[in-house]
Amino acid sequence: MTLIAQLQAAVGAAHVLTHDDPSTDLSAWEQDWRKRAHGRALAVVRPGNTAEVASVVKACAAAGASIVPQGGNTGLVVGGVPDNSGTQVLLSLTRLNRVRAIDSANLTMTVDAGCVLQNLQTTATEAGFLFPLSLAAEGSCTIGGNLATNAGGTQVLRYGNTRDLCLGLEVVTAQGEVWEGLSGLRKDNTGYDLRDLFIGSEGTLGIITAATLKLYPQPAAKLTAWAAVPSMQAAVDLLGLAQQRLAAGLTGFEVMGQFALGLVDKHFAQLRVPLWQDTPYCVLLENSDFESEAHARALFESLLETAFEQGTVTDAVVAENLTQAKGLWHIRESIPLAQAEEGLNIKHDISVPVSRIPAFCEATDAELQAAIPGMRLVNFGHLGDGNLHYNVQAPEGVDGKAFLREQEERINTLVFDAVARFDGSISAEHGVGSLKRDKLPHYKNPVALGLMRAIKAALDPKGLMNPGRVI
Amino acid sequence: MTLIAQLQAAVGAAHVLTHDDPSTDLSAWEQDWRKRAHGRALAVVRPGNTAEVASVVKACAAAGASIVPQGGNTGLVVGGVPDNSGTQVLLSLTRLNRVRAIDSANLTMTVDAGCVLQNLQTTATEAGFLFPLSLAAEGSCTIGGNLATNAGGTQVLRYGNTRDLCLGLEVVTAQGEVWEGLSGLRKDNTGYDLRDLFIGSEGTLGIITAATLKLYPQPAAKLTAWAAVPSMQAAVDLLGLAQQRLAAGLTGFEVMGQFALGLVDKHFAQLRVPLWQDTPYCVLLENSDFESEAHARALFESLLETAFEQGTVTDAVVAENLTQAKGLWHIRESIPLAQAEEGLNIKHDISVPVSRIPAFCEATDAELQAAIPGMRLVNFGHLGDGNLHYNVQAPEGVDGKAFLREQEERINTLVFDAVARFDGSISAEHGVGSLKRDKLPHYKNPVALGLMRAIKAALDPKGLMNPGRVI
Repeated sequence: MTLIAQLQAAVGAAHVLTHDDPSTDLSAWEQDWRKRAHGRALAVVRPGNTAEVASVVKACAAAGASIVPQGGNTGLVVGGVPDNSGTQVLLSLTRLNRVRAIDSANLTMTVDAGCVLQNLQTTATEAGFLFPLSLAAEGSCTIGGNLATNAGGTQVLRYGNTRDLCLGLEVVTAQGEVWEGLSGLRKDNTGYDLRDLFIGSEGTLGIITAATLKLYPQPAAKLTAWAAVPSMQAAVDLLGLAQQRLAAGLTGFEVMGQFALGLVDKHFAQLRVPLWQDTPYCVLLENSDFESEAHARALFESLLETAFEQGTVTDAVVAENLTQAKGLWHIRESIPLAQAEEGLNIKHDISVPVSRIPAFCEATDAELQAAIPGMRLVNFGHLGDGNLHYNVQAPEGVDGKAFLREQEERINTLVFDAVARFDGSISAEHGVGSLKRDKLPHYKNPVALGLMRAIKAALDPKGLMNPGRVI
Repeated sequence: MTLIAQLQAAVGAAHVLTHDDPSTDLSAWEQDWRKRAHGRALAVVRPGNTAEVASVVKACAAAGASIVPQGGNTGLVVGGVPDNSGTQVLLSLTRLNRVRAIDSANLTMTVDAGCVLQNLQTTATEAGFLFPLSLAAEGSCTIGGNLATNAGGTQVLRYGNTRDLCLGLEVVTAQGEVWEGLSGLRKDNTGYDLRDLFIGSEGTLGIITAATLKLYPQPAAKLTAWAAVPSMQAAVDLLGLAQQRLAAGLTGFEVMGQFALGLVDKHFAQLRVPLWQDTPYCVLLENSDFESEAHARALFESLLETAFEQGTVTDAVVAENLTQAKGLWHIRESIPLAQAEEGLNIKHDISVPVSRIPAFCEATDAELQAAIPGMRLVNFGHLGDGNLHYNVQAPEGVDGKAFLREQEERINTLVFDAVARFDGSISAEHGVGSLKRDKLPHYKNPVALGLMRAIKAALDPKGLMNPGRVI
């Protein structure tokens, strides 16, 4: 029996899509979100449950065919699309989309890997809880993809990365066995932490088919403030003060450079960006309060008063209501769109220790300016996590496409070298995928790489799980 | 050169202790905390820094000698003492005891593995922060041991296990290489999560020599309440209410059965246990407040008022001051001592999902009572984490030693089988060590065990790192 026939037997012929019919368009699975890569799969296989995933993996392992797992296909590092060989099996998890259980007293929900993140947020809300993972692609990305890439987002400061929101996993191994690790336990010290090994391994060690996730109580109110700060150091000082005053109530702390906000003002004038014209940076703070909006407001006012006195804030507004709060977040979230309007640019997703961000920015801004006079920095991100989207836009009047072609490699090297000097990471949120795989040997600790290779060889000795990704 | 000579060259002759002189007493390293095992080491080696640890590991690897790493030697599962062969090298990490750095703006500290936990708590306090890991052995245990065993303790509900408090590690691999992974980053998605693989691996994959740990702001006040609850289900309901009202302020939620509290009352009458006589369980709640003690008190009073109305609490006291608060915690912490006064008993450290604790207790209490009429249950623990120390004391008048000898295996099997039926863990906090190693094949998922074995073989192919532990 051919592999295709075996796959059809495993999941049903209707769920095995191939190029046999030349009119079939598999772009939705073969092309990545940002259209950087368009591969060609042997087949797109869409199993409907965990047992079918295991059958597919067993068939592929026997045939020596490699597997590329895919969730919502919203990844940013070309980690979930097939190569051009026409030999890889694209395993789509989106039909695994059931919420298996909600356990209110245990504050957990157990869900299939193919559930769309936004649907899980809604599921949690309807049960009276919060599932705090939130990121731009939440309307399309799946929780399996979030887990496979250890996704970050806007609530990491309080609730952690996806890793921190997961108690247990169900995984199909490279051998097609099913590890039933859907634990709802908050404490279990009976062996190695397999859960965290699969989380963030980008499908290279096995396939996550379900997870038990943490739920949190819903806050009584969420309040947002917007502050002008005189420097990046002042932003870091304000963060420290906010952490002391609001503690776990501080659920968001975003920094935005003046040029980034200017782009929003230029391209989306209707959003009415506050306070950006006379200050190098603005900060967005979010306070999730479990008492009341009035309590949240009192805490914010006291915090900002102290910050004014200390000189870390020069001007500030506190949202009057939920609509205003959403409006402020909307400005923050519009920066990527505004920079796209302005033209192509070179994107980074870096982290350094929070304490070193001011020095990193000062040194790297200057280096970039010296290397490419007139380059424009779209600097914004999750300052509370030490994570910046430190993007470089062409000098005014320079064609974006030509700029990318001529400068991308040089600018990446300059920024990544600076990140390395400041003990940072060249991929804070987005992962490695294919896009940054060749960078790892240069920027990752060699002993760590050796350990990673040993683990990969041990768990996937045939090298069939998402080959060419991560290592 | 003999191995001993090589070890002496690596760390200095003064730091290699052997039985050559028959009067040398190495019991402090060879005997475990609870005196369940007394081995005989080839040598006790005490390196003074990471490079020396690496040299010791290389020498042992070349000689085929196995290594047993040890911190404060306070483990409860016989995981850190040598066997009786006289061939194992006991590697003591206690001379690695420097605080390497404190980074206030990054909320981190980087410390050697041999630092005593209590000293790190003090270091953090003196820097104006909180290092929240707290457990009974904190005056002697080391952070390296806490990491190697993923220790739990009393603050897990809010701050997580040791795993959750660590951002980066320095590790000497089984080959004697040094992985410099002392990251202070809160986001880094450049490869597999090696950190969490070493954490909790009990020295079987490599030796943790340093760590970068999270610091937290100090709360303005800590307040403690003590409540009588009419049932375990009421305790679980109260937990849910407290999580909604206090959110991250709820830093402790301990449950204590009537018999356990009666033992404290009997053996330590001066502690004046409140409210225990007319209720099956009492609960201790701790609220860490970032505003003020008055604010904490108002929240507690409102919470308890609702709980009275809902019938989940029948009586309660809120500590008037810090001394009273400490007194209430002291009662909780005296339960293990009180049960020791009463006689030997069979200890468990189990977890099940919080939601299933009432049914687990009801079913297992009844099974035990049927199996051993008159047995007395010392049931207490970290209910907020689903973690119970579900200990079994001999019937009144029965000799404890005889009881242990005759009943321990049978009672363990009964309790562990019940834990398995309720999807729990037979070791929530204490780890596997030697003591529970032979239980794993029966109670752990076989696919998980296969993955663990593959990882062990990949990272420690000679099997020299703490052999006979975990797997």
